[in-house]
Amino acid sequence: MKYYSYFRSSAAYRVRIALNLKGVDYEQVPVNLAKAQQQAQAYLSRNPQGLVPALELADGTVLSQSIAILEWLEDTYPTPALYPADATKRALMRSFCLNIACDVHPLNNLSVLTYLRDVLGADPQQVAAWYSHWVYRVFDAAEQQVATGTGKFCFGEAPSMADCLLIPQMYNALRFEVDVTAYPTLSAIYTHCTALPAFEAADPARQADNPDQAS
Amino acid sequence: MKYYSYFRSSAAYRVRIALNLKGVDYEQVPVNLAKAQQQAQAYLSRNPQGLVPALELADGTVLSQSIAILEWLEDTYPTPALYPADATKRALMRSFCLNIACDVHPLNNLSVLTYLRDVLGADPQQVAAWYSHWVYRVFDAAEQQVATGTGKFCFGEAPSMADCLLIPQMYNALRFEVDVTAYPTLSAIYTHCTALPAFEAADPARQADNPDQAS
Repeated sequence: MKYYSYFRSSAAYRVRIALNLKGVDYEQVPVNLAKAQQQAQAYLSRNPQGLVPALELADGTVLSQSIAILEWLEDTYPTPALYPADATKRALMRSFCLNIACDVHPLNNLSVLTYLRDVLGADPQQVAAWYSHWVYRVFDAAEQQVATGTGKFCFGEAPSMADCLLIPQMYNALRFEVDVTAYPTLSAIYTHCTALPAFEAADPARQADNPDQAS
Repeated sequence: MKYYSYFRSSAAYRVRIALNLKGVDYEQVPVNLAKAQQQAQAYLSRNPQGLVPALELADGTVLSQSIAILEWLEDTYPTPALYPADATKRALMRSFCLNIACDVHPLNNLSVLTYLRDVLGADPQQVAAWYSHWVYRVFDAAEQQVATGTGKFCFGEAPSMADCLLIPQMYNALRFEVDVTAYPTLSAIYTHCTALPAFEAADPARQADNPDQAS
């Protein structure tokens, strides 16, 4: 399988974690968002939406949207399971994941921040306030959802889909210097998970297309 | 089951369609977003994220996030199936659904349009341009994905999860007077589906909490 990814994309980072947790072999193909390679014809012919990530299967089928890819991985490589077996618990975990995937990430990704700046004339302070606003809205609820846990993983005693979503979002929040002191449990989970091999290997800092890594 | 909904919320509309298609009994409880009832303590105690929709199960568990609720419905009431049985086809349909759920809807919902207006000072033309921009980005790809179909449903010969997502998004686009002439197949599917009983009963115009309906 070929995995079209950009080191810094948090949607791409989610799927790398899951691929590593499940021990799936894949070839990573970099798509440089800073050079708008996702809008080049070579990529659009594979993924007309022009977003990363995308997963190209052995038969040439291209899957896009990180959550659809994560669900496909769970369906196709069921061990280790990243969702609970119980339908209601699974729904509660999906809700946690989709809070991040729908209500933070789409509002804070590069194309939106660029639109705010270039089309609406937002200044750097306004862009930073926008960024934090949507993080806080979701992290306030997410912190409550995990506060009764162990502080190692979002739910239970093993990595799950929730951790695949949280870790990249927290990485992004820290990169944008969002104040996360109100989220001690989310922060503890971040510290714990990022030290584990599957997460460490997925870290943007470790990817071959990270210019710091390549230099 | 109690379904917390607002007639005009497109996320709530998605789930109403699926509940109707599967013939599931439920009691609809209105949450008036125009009066900010989703931020009132009575609702926040059920759904800390303060968004609609939410589904309260018989044991009191509350599920939030429309996609998580839709997946739970599919898991719990498998007939009629709204996803294909084949894992790859299911992933392609989820990708279509998530294009809408992640890359249009979150950018165009009420809280975001309010932020643009009240915090960033965007004028009505700028808000309308923002709205259309994200619709076009996703509908351009979605039209390609369904163009080879029959124009009755997004995929295949029966309603699916893809139609549960498309119809409310198209309803919203028309309500905001987005020019959809570039999307003939999506428009034909909208015309076809909205005339079917399960979709008709889910229509915002038919909901008891719609002021036009109540008067």
